[in-house]
Amino acid sequence: MTNSTIALLHPGDMGSAIGACAVRRGHKVLCALQGRSEFSQKRARAAGLQDLGSLEAAVAQASVVLSVCPPHGALQLARRVAGCGFKGLFVDANAIAPATARMAARIIEDAGGAFVDGGIVGAPPQPGKPGRIYLSGDRAADVVKLFEGSDTNTVDMMGPVGKASALKACFASWTKGTWALLASLYSVAQAEGVDDALRAQWSQSHPDLVKQLDAPSLNPAKAWRWISEMEEIALTYKTAGMPEGFFLAAADLYRRLEQYKDDPSKPSIEKVSAALRKAG
Amino acid sequence: MTNSTIALLHPGDMGSAIGACAVRRGHKVLCALQGRSEFSQKRARAAGLQDLGSLEAAVAQASVVLSVCPPHGALQLARRVAGCGFKGLFVDANAIAPATARMAARIIEDAGGAFVDGGIVGAPPQPGKPGRIYLSGDRAADVVKLFEGSDTNTVDMMGPVGKASALKACFASWTKGTWALLASLYSVAQAEGVDDALRAQWSQSHPDLVKQLDAPSLNPAKAWRWISEMEEIALTYKTAGMPEGFFLAAADLYRRLEQYKDDPSKPSIEKVSAALRKAG
Repeated sequence: MTNSTIALLHPGDMGSAIGACAVRRGHKVLCALQGRSEFSQKRARAAGLQDLGSLEAAVAQASVVLSVCPPHGALQLARRVAGCGFKGLFVDANAIAPATARMAARIIEDAGGAFVDGGIVGAPPQPGKPGRIYLSGDRAADVVKLFEGSDTNTVDMMGPVGKASALKACFASWTKGTWALLASLYSVAQAEGVDDALRAQWSQSHPDLVKQLDAPSLNPAKAWRWISEMEEIALTYKTAGMPEGFFLAAADLYRRLEQYKDDPSKPSIEKVSAALRKAG
Repeated sequence: MTNSTIALLHPGDMGSAIGACAVRRGHKVLCALQGRSEFSQKRARAAGLQDLGSLEAAVAQASVVLSVCPPHGALQLARRVAGCGFKGLFVDANAIAPATARMAARIIEDAGGAFVDGGIVGAPPQPGKPGRIYLSGDRAADVVKLFEGSDTNTVDMMGPVGKASALKACFASWTKGTWALLASLYSVAQAEGVDDALRAQWSQSHPDLVKQLDAPSLNPAKAWRWISEMEEIALTYKTAGMPEGFFLAAADLYRRLEQYKDDPSKPSIEKVSAALRKAG
């Protein structure tokens, strides 16, 4: 197993956790913390990432770039890396539509780099609680090797760029689509004064939904980054000939919760529902 | 307990089952089978319903009208009953928006009748397997009495017309909304060639979804009547200030499955997904 130098752009909650896996695996992991919040800087350093200040400085030293950012920033990040004349391996691990992944691939490849499509599924990896990244594209096997023996499990989909993003979009369209559905449904129930009756009905017929209503997974602190993820999923559905309205509505819903960005308060579903209606 | 004469308009799968409960409870239950299919006629007779041929003839003899029909027919049915000069108790048990229920109430009340809003939840009642109907409006208690001791359980919501329909809309927006989401999601997975990978992922993280994919409840034979139900739910959400796009997309989806109307074949999710894309 050889060690590589990876530029991880940009380490958030998920990126830092994956970066830590690469560090423990023996790779040198660089990042660019210029302009990031103190919280983000601390988290990245705690993960063992080395700050080179600017994206350009990190990319100049790296043979691999790992792009982990909010979906709406994915193409811009690819363009900036291509603009550095990067000729190494670019792994886009973002929640984007297959069509967007193919656009990113063209940007990287036109500048002389190689592109692998990635899709992260589940929670950030922790020691003993591995995460999972789906991979597709000609050089996917190289990324598998990169993470071999780490807490980031890889699945080589043995297919072209787009497949990993498609898998991720399908997976997330259930988890984040049903979150949006449940929150808007409960908001309607509240508006109509039938929330208690609905809880009573569900406690008999759908006890799992009552649990979901009250679970901390209905935490809207990440809603702000799901807006563009929903838009990418809408594009995925449209490209496949399916109605996209589910996810445009979900994007609208998550836009109404932007105020909760990084809010650690974990508001109850009652508060979330009220906020949704107020912002409507 | 006094016995009443009820006109049940019109007995389908659900209506016949509720009618049979009323018959076993000792009520006289009339219907109007003129122009209905042989299958529908047989089912209504097996439930103990008495055919008076026309709606007008049935309504003329009834002190209670129970409206159970596809959502898009609810207002028209109320208008026809009001046009008969009906002055009794009209129970609208259809899957309509609260706003639509209020319109139906005005039609009936303007003609001198009384209106109760109803919302049926769950499967058609059978002996020993009771069904449930939510009720709201001033005269809801009279409908509770009507079904007392039968296999149709009643819940008086102690609120105005609209509440029962709102509860039903919230309940159905999960069951039929997630059905639509799952079917369209799987169709996208198939189009992108990641259906097997998704099943493998779900078998680890969401085994319940794999079961749902292969369950006979994903039977599209009733999709044709869910089109207008989704449109009524969209109206419910819009009225409450929530994004309606989820359910306009679901209506679009169910429209693509109209061909399966009353088809007993219970096609696999693979066939349903392929049909969805073909009709797109």
